[in-house]
This record gives sequence, C-alpha cells and structure tokens, in this order.
Amino acid sequence: MYRSHNCGELRETHIDQKVTLSGWVQKTRDKGFVNWVDLRDRYGITQLVFDEDRTSSKLIAQARDLGREFVVQVKGMVIERASKNPKMPTGNIEVLVEELTVLNKSKTPPFTIEDETDGGEDLRMKYRYLDIRRNPVKNNLIFRSKVTMEVRKYLSSEGFIEVETPYLIKSTPEGARDFVVPSRMNEGQFYALPQSPQTFKQLLMVGGLDKYFQIVKCFRDEDLRADRQPEFTQIDCEMAFVEQEDILDAFEGLTKHLLREINGVEIEKFPRMTYDEAMEKYGNDKPDIRFGMEFGELNAVAQHKDFNVFNSAELVVGMAVPGANSYTRKEIDQLIDWVRRPQIGAKGMVYVRCNEDGSYKSSVDKFYNQEDLAKWAETTGANKGDLICVLSGEANKTRTQLSALRMELAERLGLRKPDEFAPLWVIDFPLLELEEETGHYHAMHHPFTSPKPGQLELLETDPGAVRANAYDLVLNGNEIGGGSIRIHDKETQGIMFRHLGFTPEEAKAQFGFLMDAFQYGAPPHGGIAFGLDRLVAILGGQETIRDFIAFPKNNSGRDVMIDAPAPIDGEQLKELHLKLDIPPN
Amino acid sequence: MYRSHNCGELRETHIDQKVTLSGWVQKTRDKGFVNWVDLRDRYGITQLVFDEDRTSSKLIAQARDLGREFVVQVKGMVIERASKNPKMPTGNIEVLVEELTVLNKSKTPPFTIEDETDGGEDLRMKYRYLDIRRNPVKNNLIFRSKVTMEVRKYLSSEGFIEVETPYLIKSTPEGARDFVVPSRMNEGQFYALPQSPQTFKQLLMVGGLDKYFQIVKCFRDEDLRADRQPEFTQIDCEMAFVEQEDILDAFEGLTKHLLREINGVEIEKFPRMTYDEAMEKYGNDKPDIRFGMEFGELNAVAQHKDFNVFNSAELVVGMAVPGANSYTRKEIDQLIDWVRRPQIGAKGMVYVRCNEDGSYKSSVDKFYNQEDLAKWAETTGANKGDLICVLSGEANKTRTQLSALRMELAERLGLRKPDEFAPLWVIDFPLLELEEETGHYHAMHHPFTSPKPGQLELLETDPGAVRANAYDLVLNGNEIGGGSIRIHDKETQGIMFRHLGFTPEEAKAQFGFLMDAFQYGAPPHGGIAFGLDRLVAILGGQETIRDFIAFPKNNSGRDVMIDAPAPIDGEQLKELHLKLDIPPN
Repeated sequence: MYRSHNCGELRETHIDQKVTLSGWVQKTRDKGFVNWVDLRDRYGITQLVFDEDRTSSKLIAQARDLGREFVVQVKGMVIERASKNPKMPTGNIEVLVEELTVLNKSKTPPFTIEDETDGGEDLRMKYRYLDIRRNPVKNNLIFRSKVTMEVRKYLSSEGFIEVETPYLIKSTPEGARDFVVPSRMNEGQFYALPQSPQTFKQLLMVGGLDKYFQIVKCFRDEDLRADRQPEFTQIDCEMAFVEQEDILDAFEGLTKHLLREINGVEIEKFPRMTYDEAMEKYGNDKPDIRFGMEFGELNAVAQHKDFNVFNSAELVVGMAVPGANSYTRKEIDQLIDWVRRPQIGAKGMVYVRCNEDGSYKSSVDKFYNQEDLAKWAETTGANKGDLICVLSGEANKTRTQLSALRMELAERLGLRKPDEFAPLWVIDFPLLELEEETGHYHAMHHPFTSPKPGQLELLETDPGAVRANAYDLVLNGNEIGGGSIRIHDKETQGIMFRHLGFTPEEAKAQFGFLMDAFQYGAPPHGGIAFGLDRLVAILGGQETIRDFIAFPKNNSGRDVMIDAPAPIDGEQLKELHLKLDIPPN
Repeated sequence: MYRSHNCGELRETHIDQKVTLSGWVQKTRDKGFVNWVDLRDRYGITQLVFDEDRTSSKLIAQARDLGREFVVQVKGMVIERASKNPKMPTGNIEVLVEELTVLNKSKTPPFTIEDETDGGEDLRMKYRYLDIRRNPVKNNLIFRSKVTMEVRKYLSSEGFIEVETPYLIKSTPEGARDFVVPSRMNEGQFYALPQSPQTFKQLLMVGGLDKYFQIVKCFRDEDLRADRQPEFTQIDCEMAFVEQEDILDAFEGLTKHLLREINGVEIEKFPRMTYDEAMEKYGNDKPDIRFGMEFGELNAVAQHKDFNVFNSAELVVGMAVPGANSYTRKEIDQLIDWVRRPQIGAKGMVYVRCNEDGSYKSSVDKFYNQEDLAKWAETTGANKGDLICVLSGEANKTRTQLSALRMELAERLGLRKPDEFAPLWVIDFPLLELEEETGHYHAMHHPFTSPKPGQLELLETDPGAVRANAYDLVLNGNEIGGGSIRIHDKETQGIMFRHLGFTPEEAKAQFGFLMDAFQYGAPPHGGIAFGLDRLVAILGGQETIRDFIAFPKNNSGRDVMIDAPAPIDGEQLKELHLKLDIPPN
C-alpha cells in the first residue's frame, strides 16, 4: 500500500497517528539542524520534517539528496507544528519522517511547478504533463469534470437519455470542412468525422427516443482561429413534440442548475431579446448584458444639420460610457485611434462630454448646440459624468464597430466581471444569410432549421426577411448554446433545400437518408447544442478555453507534446495509394 | 404545447381530466360503431376511443384515415375503460377524443413496429430509426444510458476525474491498425484515431491527476469479426500510487455497484484465479463460473494402459457433464461429431456414463475396468447420472477444445442463465506471448505492463514464464475488463522494449514522449479498461452488443442507413493528392 492518507487530509485530529504518504517533492528547506520537505499530491501539500534530535543521520542525508519533483513515499508520525501555517489546510501539523523511499527520481523540470510559473506557453504545452501538476491547470480539469457531471445529473433527472452516435460517418457538409478517414475494409471509400451529430440526433427523434443528449467530440478540418480546436466538445441535445418555448424552458433549467451548483448563483428568469433588437441595442447577436451602454440611434436628432458626415450616413449611433467624462483629451484621442484601426474600421468618432454642471462639450460643437446635444444624451441615456461616443456610416458596419468599442470600453472600465453571470436568450434569428460574394443565401443555423410559422411564402419574395425558430443562449457576451426547431416534413425541407441552392439530386445524395426517414412519421422536434469548452471557461471565470482541455492543440492544430499530426509513413502511404487507386511510386 | 401528458402515465386518478397527447399510431381497430386507436410514444401506449354516440362523424372519419405510424396530436377526456387491460399500465383508462390533428403522415413501415417484428436484420439496420421505435431496441438504449450514468456516479463519488483525451493523435501501434486522418492544415501529415487513450492516461498520472476515468470511443481499422465494431466504447481508468490490490479493490467496487443498481444483485467478494489455474481448470482465460464442469487431468489414471491414443497424448483431460448420462447414443454421437468439426478440431472423444447404480459404461471399456473409471470419476468430480467427456492430445489445444465443449454443453443444458452473474478476477497473466510464425515475443497486454516483482531477470532466460501484474475481470465467461500495473521507470521500460523487439530508435520514435515524461517523476500507476459495449450487453442479459448501439455498423464496417463509408468525391480526392504530394490526374 503506497499511502494511508493523501497529502491534503491530515489535521490536528491525526496527531500521534502513524501514516504513510506518497507524492512529489514540492520543495526542500535545509536549515542545518532541521530539514523540511513539502510533499505534494493532487489533494494538497503536507510538510515533512527531519531533524537532528529525532531523525537518523542516514535519513537526513537521504532527505538532503531529494530534488524537486522526486516521487517519494514516507512513513512517519503526525505531530503538531511548532509554527503553524493558517493558510494551509494541513498547516497545523507536520509528519516526522521515520522511513523514506524514493519511488522515482526526476530531472529538474523545465519550469517551476507553482501556481505562478516561469514557463512560457510553448514550453508548458510541450510538457503538458508537468503543467497539469500545477494547481490552476489541475483545478480547471477537475472543474470541467464537475461541470459535465452536473450536466449529466440534471439532464438524466429530466428524462434525457444519453446516446452515443457514431464517429465514423458519411460526409454531410455543414459549413465547415470534414476530416476524412479512409476505410481499409472498403477500398476507395472514406468515412468523415462528424462536425456535429446533427443528423443522428434528428434520426433518434424519428426513432421516438423523445429526449436525447450527448456530451460528444466534434471535428472541423479548418484553419484555426485563436483558441479554437480542430476537435471540440459539444453538449448536444434534442427533444420531440416541442415548440421553441419547451426548449428554452428545458435548457434555461439546465443553465440555472449549473450556475447554482457550480457557481452558487441563483438566477430567476433569463431575459429574452430578438436578434433584431440585439443588433439595434448592442450591434451584436451575443451581447454582454452585465453592463448597459445600450445604443441610441441618433439619425432623427443628428441629421439635417450642417454636419455632412452624419447627413450622408445610413446610421448615426451612439452610446453613453459611464463615468468616462473624466477621460483626458489624450485618452479620447487614443480611443479615436482605436476605432480607426483596420480591425475596427471606423472613419472617426464624435464624442460628447456630459459635464457635472449639466452642460455638454462635444467634438462637433460647430454644428450642434446644447439643446441638440441634450437630445443625444436623452436618446443614449447618458448621465452627468458620462462620455457619449458616436459612430456613423453604413448601418450594419457601424453597429459592429460601436459594438467592438463597447466591449473594449467595458473591459477597460472593469465592467466584465468574471464572477457575475448574465444569461440572455437571443431569439428569432434570420433563417438565411446572404453570402455577399456569390449572392446566394445559405442557412444561418443549418439547413434543417424551420422558418417561423407563416413565413414560408416570404422565402420567394424576401428571403432575407424570413425569421427562424432559432435561438442562442448567450452568457456574458459569449454564445454558449444555439439551436432551432427543425423542419420535420419532407415538403418544407424540399422547399428549403431549393432556396439553399441544392438541386434535388444534391439534396438526395447528401441528406437522402434523413429525408427518407422523415417519410416514416417524423415528430415535430428541435434541439440545442452547447459548446462545452467555452461554457466551462466562462463558468470558470476565464477567457482561454485551452486552459480547460487536458491536451489542447496549438493554433496550427498540433499537439506539440506527442508530435501529432506526424508525417505519414511508407506503409500507410502505400495503403492510401491503393485506396486512391493510384499506382504506388 | 404538444402534450399535457405522455402516453405512459395516465391512470384512474386522471379520469375526467382534459388531456393532450402526442405520439405514433400503433394500431387502429374499427368495430363499426366504435373505433380504437393505440397511441404510442417512448413512455407507453394509451388507448384512444371514438364512438358514434360521443364523437362527431367528422372526427370518426378522420380516425378511420389514420395509418400505422402516423404522428398525431389528440385532445380529449380521460374516461374509465369498459373492458380493462390489466397487462397495460394505462389499461384502466382510455381517452375519448375531441380533437385530432395529424402532425405527420407515414408511409407503411417496411417491418412491424412490435416487440416481435417481421423485419430481418438487414432491413432493421437500414431503417434503424424505425427499429429504435421498437421496445427491445429502445429499452436497450435506455439501459445503456443508465449503465454509463451509474458508472459515472460511482467513479465520481470515489474521487475519479473524467478527463477527455484527444481523438486526433499520433499513431502509436497497439497491436491493431490505426485509422489515419490527413490534416489539411499540416500537409503531408496525418493524425491517427486512438485505439485507446492508453498513453494519455499514463501522462495524466505523470501529471498527478491521481484518479482518472473516461467513457471514450476507440477505433480499430481491422477486419471485423462478428459483433465487433470498428469504433467501440471503453470505460478507461487509471490510478496513481497503487498496487494491483488497490485496482482490484476499486473496480470490484464499481462492478458490485453496477450489479446492485442495474441488476439488483448483491455479490459479496469476487473470486480470483491465476491465469494458469484458469487454463488448467477451464481451458480458458475467461471461464464462465456460473456452473461447474471443471477439468480433471487424467494422465495419471488413464495413461500406461493399452489405449495408445491416450498413451501418446501430452494431455488427457475430462469433465463431468451433470445429468448427461441420460443422453442417447445418438446424442453422444452428435457430440463427438461436434468436437470433430474443423472449428473445434478434436480427433475424437471418449466418454463414460456414470450410471445411477454406481457402475460405469465407457466407450473404452476394452482398455479400462470399473476401478479405472471410478478414478476418472473421482478426478473429474463426476456423480451418478453424469457423463464424463474426455479429450486428449497436445495440452493447450486439447484444453481449448474441451473448453469449447464445456461452453456448448452448458448452453444446451441451460446453465448459462442470463439473470445469474458470476464475476471472476483472473490474475497473473503471462507478460509475453510467443508469436508462433515469427518466433518473436510480443506483449500480451501492452508494452507498458510491468512484470511481477523479481521476474525481470527471467526475461533473459525464460521469457514465456514471466508473469505480469496484469488482470482481467471476467463476467459470465466474457472478459469485460482488463488492465495492469504499468512500468513507471525508464530503465525497466527500456528493457521491455528491447525484449519486444524495438530498437532504441523505434522505441523513441513511437513512445519517446512517454519515455521523456517518465523522466520527470512518474508515480507508480496502473489501470483497467472495460469494454462498455460487451459489459452493457451482459448486464442486459443478452448476447449481441449491436443491439445496444444506436447506429451500429455491419460486419463490413458499413452503416447501411447513411451509406458510410462513401466513395471519396473529386474535391476530397484532389486535396488528398495534394497532401500526398501526388500530381492530380
């Protein structure tokens, strides 16, 4: 038996007990007549003591030979500490060592195994197994495990069945590119890895399973953006005989459960907002509503004066930044530079200082008097002490620019508090999105999303105006989940495929099995999928999803630790050649 | 709202309530003046009633148009049934329909949606979404979900952390062939799909996670045997600072928990048996011990008489088949034919009838007298009324043949009861296995398995004799789990690799990252992996794992429903060519 207790559990109640501990040497301190060793395992740190009065000189010599991260087993007596450490759960005791066994030596680790390490990210990725020994990473992995367990507990208690769907499937384009997997048993043929279990969960609804969920890996062979993995995890859910309201209800329940059990936060009822409203108020379909700074449209009060920049703009829109009247001229100039950066793309920014005495001072005083500016303040909800920032131009672009500025300022003002949680349902998404390059519409959510009742006809006349039974769950400015009520009849699906530019042959080739299934009594159904990686990070109050993944890949999709992907070897290449029907070199 | 209740929950307490139900038309009965419709959903069946006295003629006409598997919504009143059906949970009531909406029509399904269907396996696979509507399949999927939930509950409560390990990894040969996955972002390079998360779970132990588990898909690109899937699910577990005893303890706990919660069976302490003992007693390293029929070695009492077949055999071995003295001569001849089939390969079979009067009648009475046969009976533990079956020949082959006969007879005698559970630990497996074709040894379990203490030296002199810290958990004659204590130091691992025929370069190329990790303080560790598919089937008292998988593949690795794997398309081929550095055609 390697241990009687772990390194986190000994207390004063254990004093005078003989114990056996195993763990890693965190650090050693040699004071000449007394040696201390901090022994660490997953559960905590226990101080070991060796001293000239009570420990054999042989044992002390052994202790002096210990290096950082050596793996040792000790037997000894729990004793009261002379100088207690109230910051450590085990800080009232120490173990007087009577026997020491080195279970494994360690080379000096390339970075310190401390909460604040001296290792850069590349080094920490290469030695991920050492990084995991650090509390922040270890605790994140434990946190993720706790979140998934709570998800499962809640959904099971609500009658959801977890069903494993296949990973080796047929390629069904869903916007991103599939990873392909050649099959040895079926030469010249390929599986694809799923981008999501979408079609399978719909088949399960056709199969009458009624309430399905799965925590499942999904795959996209795409260029990675920062912090986006080629393999990612989804909480995938689907229900039959439901309308949008039933889904929002069920998964508001799940999210409340997680906030309660994981974060100790009680939230009554999640607010809802249409997509159009979110775009108008925040310029963003996933607004962070932990803070205000709602947009005010200023066309009515700012146009038709002599300021041509505004007069020629499709949209003039502003927001009140709380307390930012205190910004210096230099700080404001920096803000203007910030919005003019190519990534944001605004031409400039007009601002109004709302002074404490009720007066206004703007960058366009030449064109607007105090009365005009008072109307701006009213429209943007600005108070004394605020700064109103105004952008103008093409409507959609301008909103996006102001949204970026809003997030940037909220960050600077400390309004994005990681321990505050503001969920929001965004509903009534557009069904279709115009692809500007091709002039084609494509499904905003996916091709099975149903239009709002009675809007099918609009598809012919004004496709961009059709709204869908589609919803996103937003948490603190991040889309954590999204879904829709599906089309469950073959006719509507046929119309949709036509509008998405599929010929009947293409639709049949790609989705034929689903359309076939719909002929055998598909029930009304809908669902939602949560991005687990992001959800966990947000619940954990952090930004980087990678820190919650045991073995993440870097931005090139590489696992640097194990050197994957690796060059294909001769044997594999030969087999692939055969499968591809290419004569081997 | 599609329903106020589901189709399984209405009882007499609901009488006189207005309800809304949705589901599938299971069947309709038209008696002229009254129509009944059985409405089915996941939760049960509720009888709907339409009759001339109380239902509008328009509604009756609608009901008459309903076909099997139509999806309908009804509103109506719960009433007491005239003739109750005590076999149905809802059998005391019916719903008098006031409103009927057809939510979706259905083509006539290609097989009946009944517990006993008229559909053959191929048809059921092709229309798996209809097969899932049938109770046996649906209940199996629900059962599987319950098993995985109980696994997670138990392991979490024991402090295990579920960690997701990557699916896109580096190829690490583990006996079977990897699926390879070309990477678009890294041209000419390939990921592999994991055959198991073995190396990652060991890295997690190096990382100090202490107790890990994961329910995880694994992949093997191999010819499929019956009922073996190219993707399968494992309960994968690993613990640090453990000896074999700790692992057996922990996972005996898990298995007891499952037997208790899932099957209501309480089992005190699992018996243990060494590999050598299992081979001697049952000719099999995964013996079914729900019944006896242990082997008796008869060399001492059957050789050196005049029966040359036995005299020239390496092994003469028999077993007593309980009550089989009643077999007719014809039945015994059939048994002899059975063991002589090429799949079994015995040359013949000697038998002894143990008569009720205490006398013996054998097929070799010419060579053996009553006293001789009494010794055989003693050695095999035969009682009056039994039949002793004896095989002879090369020791290993003969044991395997008798083992096959033992299982066949147990099946025929009804001794393999699906609701009886007999777990067994088989321990002390050989470390290495001789590959007869090449004369090379390879790891029986996997290359990280540690030899028993003190046996490292034997590797040089008698590799086949070295026993490993390796164990299997056997349930009802099936290996449901297997694992080992791992090698945690680089030196021993180096010796092992050498004996497994890896050059240092090969070992470094394939396992370098693990060996590197071991230099930074790897703790002693070990683990186990359970084949979830088989475990679920056995707990469910069934033979076929496929029946517990939502979308299984057939014996060619094909999902016939979605037609996967599918021929690679032009675009994919072009990309692969580029990646493979082959000029496109």
